[in-house]
Amino acid sequence: MEVLKTHAVYGGTLRYLRHDSAVTGTPMTLSVYVPPGEGPFPVLIWLSGLTCTEDNFTSKAGAYASAGEHGLIIVAPDTSPRGEGVADDPAYDLGQGAGFYIDATQTPWAKHFRMETYVVEELIALIDVEFPTTGTRAISGHSMGGHGALTLALRHPELVRSVSAFAPISSPTRCPWGEKAFTAYLGEDRAEWAKHDAALLIEAGTARGHFGDILIDQGDADPFLVEQLKPELLTAAGEAAGQAIRLRMQPGYDHSYFFMASFIADHVAFHAERLKL
Amino acid sequence: MEVLKTHAVYGGTLRYLRHDSAVTGTPMTLSVYVPPGEGPFPVLIWLSGLTCTEDNFTSKAGAYASAGEHGLIIVAPDTSPRGEGVADDPAYDLGQGAGFYIDATQTPWAKHFRMETYVVEELIALIDVEFPTTGTRAISGHSMGGHGALTLALRHPELVRSVSAFAPISSPTRCPWGEKAFTAYLGEDRAEWAKHDAALLIEAGTARGHFGDILIDQGDADPFLVEQLKPELLTAAGEAAGQAIRLRMQPGYDHSYFFMASFIADHVAFHAERLKL
Repeated sequence: MEVLKTHAVYGGTLRYLRHDSAVTGTPMTLSVYVPPGEGPFPVLIWLSGLTCTEDNFTSKAGAYASAGEHGLIIVAPDTSPRGEGVADDPAYDLGQGAGFYIDATQTPWAKHFRMETYVVEELIALIDVEFPTTGTRAISGHSMGGHGALTLALRHPELVRSVSAFAPISSPTRCPWGEKAFTAYLGEDRAEWAKHDAALLIEAGTARGHFGDILIDQGDADPFLVEQLKPELLTAAGEAAGQAIRLRMQPGYDHSYFFMASFIADHVAFHAERLKL
Repeated sequence: MEVLKTHAVYGGTLRYLRHDSAVTGTPMTLSVYVPPGEGPFPVLIWLSGLTCTEDNFTSKAGAYASAGEHGLIIVAPDTSPRGEGVADDPAYDLGQGAGFYIDATQTPWAKHFRMETYVVEELIALIDVEFPTTGTRAISGHSMGGHGALTLALRHPELVRSVSAFAPISSPTRCPWGEKAFTAYLGEDRAEWAKHDAALLIEAGTARGHFGDILIDQGDADPFLVEQLKPELLTAAGEAAGQAIRLRMQPGYDHSYFFMASFIADHVAFHAERLKL
């Protein structure tokens, strides 16, 4: 991994990194915060939302104070492969910056857009090789990245001990962002879509019993709440399937990093508690 | 004041604002965080560094957790007048984004670049009218804004109860950034320059006895430390003049917002303690 920048932050070390991904076939960028001390440390994977790179969370979420306090590594990858030879779309919600944490099967996306395999195989293994980890991890994310955190955790429960999300796309098969992206990346077969829909995965009992509870924060002034995010589909699925979903509706909060910064310490503490069991 | 954006943050309300400034003759932008509760609240004025707008501090410093806890309003103005009719220079360290918190006397800068009067007269008064303030305030800032915080506090001690800075330009008459800006804005007369040099103002005893102590954080891995910032000139001046300067050299920290985010809570607490006396 090539170190692009290093900063001291809250007693720890933050690095912006780049590596050549065998999975996406492109260079991939990420940030890694390592808390003070010798370690080993558990890892929190953070998945960002539409249009973000690794920098939005890194510079705006204010997560490293609590990560330093609790002794967590935080890994924040970019949201898609990028570059001149990589397929793209003029819209902000498809293509570069909008990888949706799935492996695309359709032309022209299938060549590089393999974010699920990138995160759950390549990235996780690379972090365990390059940093002093305990090999235990949690996952969280925002919006499209909340969808990513939930679906990757539910599809690969052996990889993470806990999962949370901020304003996740709760059921991409039932909202415009998800319908558009899944059509482009996965084609018309809705049975394939269902495998990457958090509410449907919970209903199906995919990871039943693995996660004691799942923490979700959602601002009630979020402009995407009703049309795109639909957390009520998550809680309904949780009730139907016996999966505890702790949905906190936060009055007055929107979809911005100011919302996440306000509650990120709760999520870091939530994961730290479960990672240290 | 026109409200451009509003966000709930840490239980309080953050607004991005714009108003027509009679002092600069331009629209000026700023952010204002108001903590939860009815108030009235004391005010911390934050002055940013070269190239910044009001947004850098607002989105990256992570100051609002502690401001909410201590009950402080934080006001972060832009670093200069801006716009098509406003003088500028291609360099990053002169003109728009580089107001240096002084009133320029030289052509073409004198027309709009009046940041000292803007902050100490217009901005402070406007905040007291528009927000529930106690009328008491503190000031802090970073780099060029650290110079601004120190010099405005020392030149107008009646306006602020406490002052701190991150990596301030300690003596602009003795560093390239300051020499360039002061030559352009104030002309060749170094007696005029000395009125806006924190180390020289402390040596001259301008605000003697007003500030019990002044808190300075400085990263020892800051690439601008030796050539531009020179905190040793501040501490020497403080020793000579009997002004307590609490300089904390922070090992490994650089000049970025990651440095400030790591210690901003200490500065907010420092000011809160002095503002509530």
